[in-house]
Order: sequence, then C-alpha cells, then structure tokens
Amino acid sequence: MNQTMTRRRILTINPNSSAAVTAAIDEAVAPLRIPGGPEIVVVGLAEGPPSITSQRDADSVVMPLVNRVAREDADAFVLACFSDPGLHAVREAAGGRPVMGIAEWGILRALTLGERFGIIALSPQSIRRQQRMVRQMGFEARYAGSWSVGASAAETAGADIRGRLIEAGRALVTQPGADVVVMGCAGMASHRAAIEEAIGVPVVEPAQQAVAAAIGAVLLRA
Amino acid sequence: MNQTMTRRRILTINPNSSAAVTAAIDEAVAPLRIPGGPEIVVVGLAEGPPSITSQRDADSVVMPLVNRVAREDADAFVLACFSDPGLHAVREAAGGRPVMGIAEWGILRALTLGERFGIIALSPQSIRRQQRMVRQMGFEARYAGSWSVGASAAETAGADIRGRLIEAGRALVTQPGADVVVMGCAGMASHRAAIEEAIGVPVVEPAQQAVAAAIGAVLLRA
Amino acid sequence: MNQTMTRRRILTINPNSSAAVTAAIDEAVAPLRIPGGPEIVVVGLAEGPPSITSQRDADSVVMPLVNRVAREDADAFVLACFSDPGLHAVREAAGGRPVMGIAEWGILRALTLGERFGIIALSPQSIRRQQRMVRQMGFEARYAGSWSVGASAAETAGADIRGRLIEAGRALVTQPGADVVVMGCAGMASHRAAIEEAIGVPVVEPAQQAVAAAIGAVLLRA
Amino acid sequence: MNQTMTRRRILTINPNSSAAVTAAIDEAVAPLRIPGGPEIVVVGLAEGPPSITSQRDADSVVMPLVNRVAREDADAFVLACFSDPGLHAVREAAGGRPVMGIAEWGILRALTLGERFGIIALSPQSIRRQQRMVRQMGFEARYAGSWSVGASAAETAGADIRGRLIEAGRALVTQPGADVVVMGCAGMASHRAAIEEAIGVPVVEPAQQAVAAAIGAVLLRA
Amino acid sequence: MNQTMTRRRILTINPNSSAAVTAAIDEAVAPLRIPGGPEIVVVGLAEGPPSITSQRDADSVVMPLVNRVAREDADAFVLACFSDPGLHAVREAAGGRPVMGIAEWGILRALTLGERFGIIALSPQSIRRQQRMVRQMGFEARYAGSWSVGASAAETAGADIRGRLIEAGRALVTQPGADVVVMGCAGMASHRAAIEEAIGVPVVEPAQQAVAAAIGAVLLRA
Amino acid sequence: MNQTMTRRRILTINPNSSAAVTAAIDEAVAPLRIPGGPEIVVVGLAEGPPSITSQRDADSVVMPLVNRVAREDADAFVLACFSDPGLHAVREAAGGRPVMGIAEWGILRALTLGERFGIIALSPQSIRRQQRMVRQMGFEARYAGSWSVGASAAETAGADIRGRLIEAGRALVTQPGADVVVMGCAGMASHRAAIEEAIGVPVVEPAQQAVAAAIGAVLLRA
Repeated sequence: MNQTMTRRRILTINPNSSAAVTAAIDEAVAPLRIPGGPEIVVVGLAEGPPSITSQRDADSVVMPLVNRVAREDADAFVLACFSDPGLHAVREAAGGRPVMGIAEWGILRALTLGERFGIIALSPQSIRRQQRMVRQMGFEARYAGSWSVGASAAETAGADIRGRLIEAGRALVTQPGADVVVMGCAGMASHRAAIEEAIGVPVVEPAQQAVAAAIGAVLLRA
Repeated sequence: MNQTMTRRRILTINPNSSAAVTAAIDEAVAPLRIPGGPEIVVVGLAEGPPSITSQRDADSVVMPLVNRVAREDADAFVLACFSDPGLHAVREAAGGRPVMGIAEWGILRALTLGERFGIIALSPQSIRRQQRMVRQMGFEARYAGSWSVGASAAETAGADIRGRLIEAGRALVTQPGADVVVMGCAGMASHRAAIEEAIGVPVVEPAQQAVAAAIGAVLLRA
Repeated sequence: MNQTMTRRRILTINPNSSAAVTAAIDEAVAPLRIPGGPEIVVVGLAEGPPSITSQRDADSVVMPLVNRVAREDADAFVLACFSDPGLHAVREAAGGRPVMGIAEWGILRALTLGERFGIIALSPQSIRRQQRMVRQMGFEARYAGSWSVGASAAETAGADIRGRLIEAGRALVTQPGADVVVMGCAGMASHRAAIEEAIGVPVVEPAQQAVAAAIGAVLLRA
Repeated sequence: MNQTMTRRRILTINPNSSAAVTAAIDEAVAPLRIPGGPEIVVVGLAEGPPSITSQRDADSVVMPLVNRVAREDADAFVLACFSDPGLHAVREAAGGRPVMGIAEWGILRALTLGERFGIIALSPQSIRRQQRMVRQMGFEARYAGSWSVGASAAETAGADIRGRLIEAGRALVTQPGADVVVMGCAGMASHRAAIEEAIGVPVVEPAQQAVAAAIGAVLLRA
Repeated sequence: MNQTMTRRRILTINPNSSAAVTAAIDEAVAPLRIPGGPEIVVVGLAEGPPSITSQRDADSVVMPLVNRVAREDADAFVLACFSDPGLHAVREAAGGRPVMGIAEWGILRALTLGERFGIIALSPQSIRRQQRMVRQMGFEARYAGSWSVGASAAETAGADIRGRLIEAGRALVTQPGADVVVMGCAGMASHRAAIEEAIGVPVVEPAQQAVAAAIGAVLLRA
Repeated sequence: MNQTMTRRRILTINPNSSAAVTAAIDEAVAPLRIPGGPEIVVVGLAEGPPSITSQRDADSVVMPLVNRVAREDADAFVLACFSDPGLHAVREAAGGRPVMGIAEWGILRALTLGERFGIIALSPQSIRRQQRMVRQMGFEARYAGSWSVGASAAETAGADIRGRLIEAGRALVTQPGADVVVMGCAGMASHRAAIEEAIGVPVVEPAQQAVAAAIGAVLLRA
C-alpha cells in the first residue's frame, strides 16, 4: 500500500476556455476519486479558445500547454481535448511524468469493447483531424468512422444536444457499422449512459478513460 | 466518492498452474491495492498446464476459464496469460462485467509510450501466436516484432533469467527497432525495472496494466 | 500416377452436431470424389453444439477437435465450421498432416475471383468473429464486410432460407461493394448456384474449397 | 462421380521459351495426374523470351497469352510464370473458365502454412515486381520479403543452383523472419524437398499449387 | 536559369486512338506551357483502341508504348491513360528519363488536398482496375472508392456528360465520404472546375498533374 | 500562355533561423526559376529555433508560420522543414492558396522512383516524428525506415557531413531495403548528387520537390 508518501496529484487540463466544459470534466471524473488514490484536479487553460474547432485552434494551445506542464509539479497530466493537442511535445516537457491524451485513451478503451469504433465529432473539421489522428495511431483497421453533430464543445456539455448525440451514435452503428462509440469531446460525459442505452452498443467517455489510465500510471510509478 | 457500497473485487486468474507465476503476479499488482479501491485477488487455475507453450496449451484453458468466470461473483476479471486465452468467450460468460487480457492491455499501454513495440516471448511458438494476435488487434503498423528467450513461464519468474531477458529486450531495440518493450508473460514483473534500466526504453509489465485498467473500469461502473 | 499405394483419406469434420449440416456438406463435396483421388469422408462431432453461434460455442469444440484429430489416421483434415475453430491447435495435433479450415479456403478462393469479398453470416455474433478472423489473416484490404441472415447452421441447410441468403448476398454487393461472396457456413451449398445467378457475382461455398485444397495437399505429399 | 462426360483438360502455359523450364513444370505436376481427374498439359510459349527478367519481359507475353487462351478449348488455364503476367486480361479472354496464376496460388498456399512468407527471387528486378504484386494482392501484413539468387529461370531448373537456393531460403528465415518460403519461379520444383529439409520451414512450389487449384475448380464446375 | 541549352521536351502520349481525347489533353495542359519551360507535346497512339475499357485494352497498349518511348528522344514522358498502362516497363525503356503516369500523379496530388480521395471511373471494369492499382500503390488507407459514369473516354471529353460526372462526384462525397475527387480519365479536364463548384470539394485533373510533375523533373535534371 | 498577368510568387519559408540552411534552400531551388514561371523567394523565420530537433521545436514554429502566411500576399507557400510543421493549420490560414510541405512532396516524389523509401534523419527524435508522419500519411506499406546522422540542420548544409550522409543512405539500402532515399532536412541539397552516385539508388531533395509542386499548382490556378 503506497500510503506513507505525499498524496499524488493528476492535473487534468481542459485546453479550451469554456468553464462549462471544465465543470463537465470535473464531474465526469468524480467516480475516480478514491481515498487512497491520487488527487484529481481539473483546470481550464486561460489562453485557450472557447471551443477547439479549426486546426489553428488545436495548434494554438500547444505551446501554452507545453509551458504550463513544464512549470506544474503534478505527478501526471491529462490533456482533456479530443484533438490531443501537443501530446508529444507535452510529453517532452513533462520530463518522464505520464501525460495522457483523452482521444488516445478513449480510443484504446474502445478497442477492448468492440471490433470497430466510431467517433461522435463536433464538426466536419474535427472529422478530418480524427482521420489523421487515427491513421497516425495506426488503428485504421479498427475505425468505422466519425459523425458530426455540428456543435461547439460547450454546447455538448448542455442538455439540449442529447437528441443529436444519440442520432449521431445511431448513425455510426447503422451506417459504417461501429459496434462501440467514442464521444469525441471532453464535455459530453453527462450524456454517456443515455446514448449507450439508446443505441445498444458501448459508449466511451474519453476524459474518464485518460484519468483512469493516469491513476494506474501514478500508482505503478510509486 | 464510491464508499458506501460493498468493496468491489477484481479477480485475476493465472491460467497456468505454476504457483511461482501466481505469486509473481500477486506481487506485481501490489502497488495497485489502495484504500477505497477495489480488492485485487490473484488465483491460479488448477486445470491449467504448468506453462502455456503450445497453441494446444492456450486453447486447453479456454473452457475452464469460461466456466470459472461464469460462476465467480467478482466485479471484473483479468486473464493473466499473455496469449489472452478465450478472451472473447470469457467476455460472453462474464455477462457484461469487465474482462481484461494482459496481452491486450500491455500492448495498449505500450502504444502510448513509443512508436513501435517489441515483445519478449517465451518461445518461437509464442512468437507465431503473438504475430496472429497483433494482426487480429489490427496493430501491425506499430509492431516491431517479438524475440524469444526460450524459457517456461515459471523460469521467467525466477532470478536466473534476467540476463537473457535483457539480451532479448536489447535485441528488440537494435534489430527491428522497437522503442518500447512489452514483457510477453505474466511472471516477469520482478525484472521490469532492471531491463528498462539496461536497455534504455520503457518496459511494460502486462499484468499490472490489465489490473490497472480493471480498476478504472470498476470505478466507472459504480 | 500415385496408384500403387493405399488410398488416401481426407476426413472432414463438421464440428456441430446437426446431421442436416453434415449431410449437406457430404453432398457439397460429392463432385470432388474421383477414381484415383483420395477418399473423402464427412463426419459430425458428437460433442459439438447444434449450431455454432456464440464464441463459447466455437471455443467449446476446440479440444474435442484436437483430440479427435490426434487419434484419427486420416491423411488430411478439413474443419467444416466457418469459425475455423482451433485451426492452429489442430495443426499441432495433426503432426504435419494437412489441416484445412473452410473459412480460410473459402476466403482464399474468393481472393482469386474478385477484388473485395463479402461474407454471408449466420448472426451479428458471427460477424464480429469474422471481423477478427479476417484481421488475423491480414486480409482487411480485400474485405468488403459481412451480412447477417439471422439463422442457425441447420436452417441454412434447408430450402426456406434461400430468399434471405439472396437478399444478404445482394446487400453485400450493393452496399459495401463486394464483387465476390463467400457463404459463411458449411451447410449452405445447395443454394450456391441460385445465389450466384441472382446476384451476378461469384459465390463461393467454403467446404468445397477446403476439401479441394486437401486433395491437392494429399496428392503432392504422395 | 463426374465420369460420363469428356475428360476435362487443364492447360498450363510456361510463358518463357525455355524447354528446360517447361519440362521441369511438367515433372513437378506429375503427382497431380490421377485417373479420374482432369488431363494436365504443360506447354511453352513460342513467343516468350528465354527468361522473364525485366518488366518488359513480363509485359511482352501478355498479349500472346491472351490470344493463346482465347483460341484454346481447355477447361482451365495455369499461367506458369511467377510474375502472373496478364492474369486479369487472360481471365477476360477465358470467358469464365478458371485461370490460375502460380504466384497467386503459391502465395495463397503459403498463407496456410506459416505467418510470414518469404520469396526466393531470380533477381533484384523480380523483387521489386514481387513487392508490387504482394501489395496489389493486399498481403503485405504477411510478407517477410524476397531474396535474390541472381539466376535465370532455366538455371533454376538445373542442379547446380541448389546451394544458392538453400542459402536464399535460409536468409529469408533468419533475416526478415519468414516461417514459410515460396519458390519464385516455375522451374525450381526439383529442389523443393531439399530446401525444405535444409532450412526447416515449409517450402512451396507454386506451379504445383496452381495446378492443384485448377483441378478443384474444374471438378466443382462439373 | 537553364536557358542556354536546347529547349527540353515533354512527350505526352494518349494511349487511346480518340482524337477528341488527345485534343482535350492538349487543351488541359496549356496553362503549363511557359516561355522558359519545357515544350509540351501531346500525341495519340495509332495502335491504341478507341477507349481503354477492358484489362485487355489496357494491356494491349503496353508494348506499343514501350517501343514508342524507346525510339523517341524526348526528355520526359507522360502516359495519359488513367490505367497507367505499362508504367514500369516504359520506365525501363526510357533509360532514366522521367516517365509520369497520370493516375499516379492525379492520386498523389489528391493526397495533398484531402484525407480520402474518390475516383470518377468510366466503368465498373475500371473500378476493379483502380482498386488493384490503389492497393499496389499502398494507398488504401486514403482511398474512399470509385464511382462509375458508364461512359467511354471520348464521351467524357464531350459536353453532354457533365451532369453524370457531377452526380458521380457528389456520390463519392456523400457515400464513401471522399473529401477530394480525382477524374479517372485523361479527357475530362473541361469539366473540372464545374464539378468542383458543384460538389464543394477539390477535383483533380490527372493529366495536368502528371505534366506539371514532368516539368519539375525536367528542370531539376538540367 | 499565362503571360499578361502579374508574375506569380511562391514564398518558401525555412522555419528555422539558420541562415546557412536558408541559403542552401535558395541554391537548391535555383534550377526551378525560369522565365515566364513564378518568382521563387526563400526566407527564414526569425522566430524559429536554430535547428528543429525536438517535437517542441517543431511545434513552436506553427503559430508563427500561421501568422506569417496569413499576412503574406504570395500565391503559394512552401514550408521548408522536414517536419512539415503546422501544415494543416497553415493551409487554413492560406485561404485556398496552395501550401506545400517538403516532407510531403519529398516522399510523394520518392513513391514514383522506387517501391520502398528510406529517410536520412537528423536525429533519433526526428525518426520517431517521421514514423508518426508516415503513418499519418498512410504510407507505411512503402516505408523502409529512417536512419539518423546525428547532426543539426545547419551542419547538414556544410561540406563535412557528406561522408555520414552517404553512410546513412547506404545503410537504408542494405538494411531495411530502401530502393529510393529522401533527404530528411531542407539543407542537404548540395550533397544529393554525390549520395545518389555513391549508393546507387535515386536520392530525393525535398525542398526542390515541394517548390516544383508549387509551380505546377500556381500555373494550374492561373
């Protein structure tokens, strides 16, 4: 039992500046907070755009994330934007401390729940970014495709969007033949169970998976 | 905090009958036992062979695993043999409870630590099984290859094997160009840090990764 | 001419216990019985389930097949279930005698008849198993997809199912763009010509192909 | 038993003009001649070059093959050059009669005997052609590589070359890690068993495999 | 400035005998004719068929192209048929002078304009040829698919076909999800801008791209 | 002839701050400056690091490049760093004007000169970035690998490095089996012909290829 040392801390950074999304992430990861486990802190990134839509949006947060991580003394980091912006540069900056991307871990978990995963995307621009990301990961053989709901990150944290999320999830199952669905944004957690119920295949919330992975990594480095 | 409920339990089953391997796994996952977290139990499989070498060995434990999981009331299961024997049939038997394979999770974790993973294998027969498994997972683009140490599972849990494990790890780095190495057996955990130190790239112990993943899955289903 | 020796024997084992399916296979391979060629025997597996639907069903016949093959003195074996259950373990047990899987050979033959093959599947569960199998074979680049008829193996041996088989074959051509179709069960042979006629692309009966391949293997080892 | 009809005929065409190679093929397929089976005829192509080395050599025989097949009344055809020259155009010309390429069938058979096949090539130019061919087939995930012996087709039919063939086979096993080897020319059959014995993995003679496949196709169309 | 030497010449060969297609290519490449750049000549192939539809058509022009290129003294060659017939044999014949295929360069340019390219094909037969070609290139991960307009090469050079070309382009975007479209024939250039306007994604005319590439190759060899 | 309009301009940006590298690029692209063709301007990026080694180096120039391109009125852009930093964000900023990456075009050109390309890399860190880039492009089937010379960008522009570049090129040919080599940095052009001569396979200088592609794109948009 790794108890005698100072409590470990996982810093989850939402790279957009939407407080609604930061709050949604904070709530999503609550089940992962346990007495003997690491502290889980969720923060926003002041320099971030309101929503990460364009490639420019994604790239604009890379250096701020690199600089933030370099000066933080957390034991592990989670980048809570589904573009995993700057993942490899942030890893350099973290000096060996674990850095988890939510797209990375949302997709990895999905690979254990079905044969072909689909992604609910915010926009057509996100889809192209996801196509590049999945190819870079080398997972095309398992990728059914992405489906856009045409919304900002903050909108997906709200209640009104649920119908469209379910529709997108269902389209991924019936059209490209996904048998597991990943939510392609950090703010959608409150809808996870409802979508899963509605579409009949597992639905993965990626921020939860990345934080869970960070817990394991922190404990195993103890 | 998910405290008021009964404590969750993760059952880790070593499908071979080697007590040395079961003990090695038990020790390997110790850092993952935390207050407030799930109970982690490691057991052997009486019906299993001493070491899983041939494909027949691997296939012979599938129905015993299926039957064992069907009658256990654990909250999640880890199959602690690097062949992930019967993974999909055991999932059917688990009725929705998470079932984690150690090859699966050892490899998934490696995918976040390098670009091309190598596997330290027990035998040439294991290598061919690993080649089929990696293709089935759809991860060939990230797979550098496997290297055999010519040993049984129980031998790899002992101290004498360390030199050969290091040699195999180094061969994976210098020849097919792996930049992360997965230990291809459940009993090798005591050598992990020493190999990593010796070969200069991350080394992943798969049973630890599968149990860590099971913790996340159990907490998120709370 | 390899005549002076004892007549060679190919044992085709239907791993389910449906006599209708065994009879259908026996009839399907009749054109391959020729004077001077090997004897072709088709048997059922008493231990098998009535139809192989779940992964558990498929895995449950592996050890019975291994044991049966080990004690038979045939010159070659055909595993006549489209899951190719236990193919690699049975090969070990056969001690160098050829062992042919029907999925394997049905798909290989299809690769010579079109660019992208589709599979008529018994059930959605079979589809996921086929997706794993095709990836394991490394043939995803040639795989259009599978289409379920929602039937048991025995039902597909009967006459009533023909309309649904044709419908599935046509769906594979028009939707994922298959230009050759493999029948994903050993009992469908009586419908082959009718489906081919109806859908306008080649349709492959897999048990015939595996037995044909076994004939070649037996003659070449003479 | 398909006896009452006229005996079926498989025409095997060696697209080069080397009589030594044609004779070697004829001898290689002798075990496949059985009383009740199809007649197997092996012929050379007068218009062909002495050995097919360059891409020009391979392309130069396509139209002669197309024209020859169009005017022959055989029941099936085998193109006995490892470049499978004109395979798809010849299929058009054959009007539905089976046309088998030896590279195609040599490789397909190898896929059932190992996880990663290697090819013994005549020359570096053949290697590049084989790389294109394997990618076109979609089998890269199973391809270990090719190794050149630096010889013409006719030379490989002779006895002197055996040592170099064994050396190339061994190099394929120890270097890119092949566990099954395909002979990349139609004339090497007399060396097959010796190479297999020497290198310890299965060695496939492709003309035998293509003719065996043609037998199956002819019987099943009866 | 490479001015003092004789003016370089790029010979573009339309392998079919349609004067309408040759004229369409000549007009398509006009913007690439610049004072200090190489001369761009477009010719037909007298021996070619009126349109290249079957595989036989494609293969029938290979040796005429090889012979033509061998005796021409141009500095670079463009093969202006979307089957890239004889590309590798013509390269041998060109003795080191650049030879560009239009399918090759149309597709390469498309890879820089979108994530997944689609091809407007003349016929279902062309589609199968394109599937083989894309696999041979190793680009399946970027290939959305092909869509047939059911027309000859000469027809696509005319005005009447525009509606069907637009329809095919739109189908490629909405169904397999192409985000860039390649025109699968050398004669369609006059429709490029109109299709692009209508379907909202980039449309690539392949003969222009191959000639542009030849200009670069010629200048860089100066 | 597109003569009456204002002369087009291609702006080539070297994202590092090494004047030696900028000068080397300027000289490399000289053969592409022709009367009647676009003006080709090569500039450095003041904000860039001396050499792009780490992922952080590569990511640090993205927003400066985005901002620079957005305010320049050139007709096309070339990003002259082999990491193609910010390629997709710069394309957004360019508002439809062509943006060419040198890695992208160096690799595309190589795909037309051989079957399997290798890359001469500056450092082991560059290799991992190249592995991710090649997977993202979807070209793994054609990628032999990368080989590090352990040098900065500026060093590769100097004369002393030639021996090590040749050694790396030769290693790519003899070990992973490359048959065409791409120079993995913008400053190596002066060594291209010497390496090609020494190793016997084509060697591609990527800045030249990207500028050549930009010329074609600019002319075709005229």
